[in-house]
Amino acid sequence: MSRRKQLKLGAILHGVGGSHTDWQHPDVSPNASINIDFYKKQALKAEEGKFDLVFIADGLYITEKSLPHFLNRFEPLTLLSAIGSVTSHIGLVGTLSTSYSEPFNVARQFASLDQISRGRAGWNLVTSYMEGSAANFGKENHIEREERYKIAQEYLDVVRGLWDSWEDDAFVGDKQSGQFFDPNKLHTLNHKGQYYSVRGPLNISRSKQGHPVVFQAGSSGDGRGLAAREADAVFTGLESIEDAKAFYADIKARAAGFGRSPDAIKIFPAIGPVVGKTTEEAERKYQEIANLVTVEKALDYLGRYFNHHDLSQYPADALFEDLDIYNWPSIRSGNEVIKRQAKEERLTLREVALRVATPRPGFIGTPERVAALIEQWLEEDAADGFIVGAAVPSGLDDFVDHVVPLLQARGIYRKEYESDTLRGNLGIPIPANRYTQPQ
Amino acid sequence: MSRRKQLKLGAILHGVGGSHTDWQHPDVSPNASINIDFYKKQALKAEEGKFDLVFIADGLYITEKSLPHFLNRFEPLTLLSAIGSVTSHIGLVGTLSTSYSEPFNVARQFASLDQISRGRAGWNLVTSYMEGSAANFGKENHIEREERYKIAQEYLDVVRGLWDSWEDDAFVGDKQSGQFFDPNKLHTLNHKGQYYSVRGPLNISRSKQGHPVVFQAGSSGDGRGLAAREADAVFTGLESIEDAKAFYADIKARAAGFGRSPDAIKIFPAIGPVVGKTTEEAERKYQEIANLVTVEKALDYLGRYFNHHDLSQYPADALFEDLDIYNWPSIRSGNEVIKRQAKEERLTLREVALRVATPRPGFIGTPERVAALIEQWLEEDAADGFIVGAAVPSGLDDFVDHVVPLLQARGIYRKEYESDTLRGNLGIPIPANRYTQPQ
Repeated sequence: MSRRKQLKLGAILHGVGGSHTDWQHPDVSPNASINIDFYKKQALKAEEGKFDLVFIADGLYITEKSLPHFLNRFEPLTLLSAIGSVTSHIGLVGTLSTSYSEPFNVARQFASLDQISRGRAGWNLVTSYMEGSAANFGKENHIEREERYKIAQEYLDVVRGLWDSWEDDAFVGDKQSGQFFDPNKLHTLNHKGQYYSVRGPLNISRSKQGHPVVFQAGSSGDGRGLAAREADAVFTGLESIEDAKAFYADIKARAAGFGRSPDAIKIFPAIGPVVGKTTEEAERKYQEIANLVTVEKALDYLGRYFNHHDLSQYPADALFEDLDIYNWPSIRSGNEVIKRQAKEERLTLREVALRVATPRPGFIGTPERVAALIEQWLEEDAADGFIVGAAVPSGLDDFVDHVVPLLQARGIYRKEYESDTLRGNLGIPIPANRYTQPQ
Repeated sequence: MSRRKQLKLGAILHGVGGSHTDWQHPDVSPNASINIDFYKKQALKAEEGKFDLVFIADGLYITEKSLPHFLNRFEPLTLLSAIGSVTSHIGLVGTLSTSYSEPFNVARQFASLDQISRGRAGWNLVTSYMEGSAANFGKENHIEREERYKIAQEYLDVVRGLWDSWEDDAFVGDKQSGQFFDPNKLHTLNHKGQYYSVRGPLNISRSKQGHPVVFQAGSSGDGRGLAAREADAVFTGLESIEDAKAFYADIKARAAGFGRSPDAIKIFPAIGPVVGKTTEEAERKYQEIANLVTVEKALDYLGRYFNHHDLSQYPADALFEDLDIYNWPSIRSGNEVIKRQAKEERLTLREVALRVATPRPGFIGTPERVAALIEQWLEEDAADGFIVGAAVPSGLDDFVDHVVPLLQARGIYRKEYESDTLRGNLGIPIPANRYTQPQ
């Protein structure tokens, strides 16, 4: 009996929500982003739903215009470590930029999280697209994307090399002879590259999953290349099944081109499901969220895609493609989608802003409908799993309580965890230590 | 009725112990340094004993010669965050070097730990004395001490400035008006100094203790100056009550010279108590630990004070003061103590090595004797408290179970926590936000 393709699930947790206005919803506490009990409760709910992982996004730069959740929030590694202490099976994935940190420190902190959680850590590697970040790190100029990805590749090489400093059986711990470790199984990296010079060894050993899982979230050509060559999982923001299928096929083909098994890299589109007992209830729940958004806040939000440019200076009813910002170079791949839709559908600035700020979720409706859509995406190879981001906390409860049982009944989702490591649940291989000779 | 001076206590937790050989003791698990359950259990024991804090030391560089605990251990911030999740009152103090990290990242991670633990975080600021560290961070040369402290001062200024980015009442959270925060209470640091250029603001607000507590552990003149001017607490390794009293008086006088209240800076000598029901039992427990040390391991350990120099090349019975290393410049203040004792007592290399590797603890004996010594040090102003470092885990149990009740009975130590913040328990002030106008 051939087993059906199995769904993977992550929950992105973001305190007061991912929009300018989610925090105004009656279900949201305005201090949720710095309330550790809120995070623990959400993580435990996701673990109750047998999710593979929780996912913590991040940023290194704020202005008065930033999203509420960006302004005042936990740092991902410390947050995930606290969450790891109260959970036992769910993976712990955090975003960290390669542009403003030392690979030795980052290798070490993720390895530490991986040992603390006994093999549940994951790193969402990003390169920081916001120009303002540089000023928080004594840098004159933000680095352009192509070079950022070159740096990221070398950075990841260094981190993985440090992670292999100790072979898995290096620590002998023989009290009689006094031998604590076998010096033949300690390896010094001695990396000297274009951007980094790092000697090693790292002062922490590998967890039972070998290395933390590496996520990549960039959708540009450079981002896709790095993902296909290096990542264990890809987080993407595609909205239509057609776009997602094309992205999925592209990444898997690129991975095969690098000699990798397509199964070794998992594709996770983001979804923001809204679930109601009836279609009408789901629609009402969505409207409660969407109605919080004013045009002013929507323009603020859209400004994030244009380097925090003040869009309120333009007439809201002008065609988007007539504005000068339409011709600005794109700073991230989301800009291209916005521009394409604006041109194709001849949208005004107001329409673009409201659509971007409160996109009507594709996954909306009864639990049956949402489960059916998920199964369709899974079976048609648009996704290996999803990162579920509920606008309000009760959205995660709805998903776990009402959609997960249907996914289980359809035979496409686990009833119990297969493993207590993140790699084990994702079904991706434990990387061999580069220094260990095959037996 | 005037209240007696109250003792403060910290527990330094270091997995397989602070020496080359503690791990060989029957009570120690060889993997304790990467066993999160071990740390949680020790922290809970310290909290049962109403300790003010747990303390995690650190290092950024290892060689084959490093202490077992250095080779394979958790990173402090991730570890403390995990410990914070299972404790409720005890402070969480971690070592982090200003020489190899970005102040924005460090300000943020400590602020995050402080919010996660609701006001229990502390930072032991060090400047990294080991030359090998530089090679893990792409640096050609290690920076000399005087400049390291200049950098540290500016670094701390930046970190504290970032911590004040948000005034305590900045987050309005008014769902009706849609005002999430008051922009007049968000402050951009715009620091441009000799070593750092950091714009800010930080993307996390202050905890209820205002800032994480700042520890300083350097005992050189530069270290004492920084401590007296800036630190909330000082961790020192002095062994005799005379030395400790002189140090205490010096730091308090220097603090007063900077216009600070001497009560606002707490002095914590390290002690490694060994407690037995009888004097003989205590002595036997000490011998079980000391007898693990061979001369070879003792020479290895002493080598750490001399830049990991191989001391086995010298005749073990030569007078220490006749060796060339005696005339090497000191890389840390401990070297001066070693040299002075070796000269005064005409010690051989072997004697110096064994004394440094297994110093006979000053605080050894029955619970009554250890409690009496602690009271003496406290009353004679040799200490405000102690950082208790038990060589083996059962040493902390002995201290909590048998010494703490006697300290409480003497009226010099709390029976219940005064506060649920670290500053509250230490009795040191909450720093005002630099931008907030006094009412």
